Amino acid sequence: MRVEYINPFLTSLSNAFSTMLGVEVERGQLHLKDGNHPVHEISGVIGLSGNAVGMVVLSFSKNVALKAASAMLMMEATEINADVIDAVGELANMVAGAAKSELEAYQLSISLPSVITGRDHEVRFPSNVKAISIPYETPWGEMTLEVGFTPAIELAQV
Amino acid sequence: MRVEYINPFLTSLSNAFSTMLGVEVERGQLHLKDGNHPVHEISGVIGLSGNAVGMVVLSFSKNVALKAASAMLMMEATEINADVIDAVGELANMVAGAAKSELEAYQLSISLPSVITGRDHEVRFPSNVKAISIPYETPWGEMTLEVGFTPAIELAQV
Repeated sequence: MRVEYINPFLTSLSNAFSTMLGVEVERGQLHLKDGNHPVHEISGVIGLSGNAVGMVVLSFSKNVALKAASAMLMMEATEINADVIDAVGELANMVAGAAKSELEAYQLSISLPSVITGRDHEVRFPSNVKAISIPYETPWGEMTLEVGFTPAIELAQV
Repeated sequence: MRVEYINPFLTSLSNAFSTMLGVEVERGQLHLKDGNHPVHEISGVIGLSGNAVGMVVLSFSKNVALKAASAMLMMEATEINADVIDAVGELANMVAGAAKSELEAYQLSISLPSVITGRDHEVRFPSNVKAISIPYETPWGEMTLEVGFTPAIELAQV
């Protein structure tokens, strides 16, 4: 996966946090996802398809999920309930949706989100997909963005 | 979610198991997913989009994942490794891909799959999505298919 595909996702994540949640996030080092690092406790997952296929995973530590949901819902969330699940799915949706607009050459559309919970869960991509993983620090704790993205033209060459 | 949307997924799952893996699966009772039942240890997740948005989750007990991967790869898989992850993603891909052909009015395209591991993971859908959950018995153990599917016309009415 080429790093240029990832930039729209980085931008949309920062924008979603600053405009929707009123906080700035600090990006760590981009790296190829190696599949051996567990992600955080709650992950929003959303698919992309069109002239490319992709998958976006936005994974939050429990505290980040609770605080982000509290900011979105304007009420304090203290446990991972349906409102928090919805907020995490909506954040994944916003990040994928804004990135989609930046990647218009690929005529992407986005799927329903799903949200994974469970302390030890890991999200993996097929081994032929070179997914990118980016750790973030937020004022509330850790978060990770993972994106797999393959243009249809490369897919046809496999 | 209307039950008629689900039939293509049921058919494609049975067909994938009988043609690719050489086993028949027994379908249990369809029910609305209530979000409180953990799924099995390994889940393939794949998004659908077009004139509808959807998400398909195919969740396997460890033994079903290992045996299904062994049948696909024609070698014995004894642990959840990259080959098993790929096989689970490919099964989710096949089920979504075959169902897509049956639902051609929706001009669906399918995303990259991702695969979730972790004994206690749960996969949830946004609370406004009435996802359907279907338990299956296979000769190797338990499996669950979950599908959320919302036509764009209904989405516009929300």
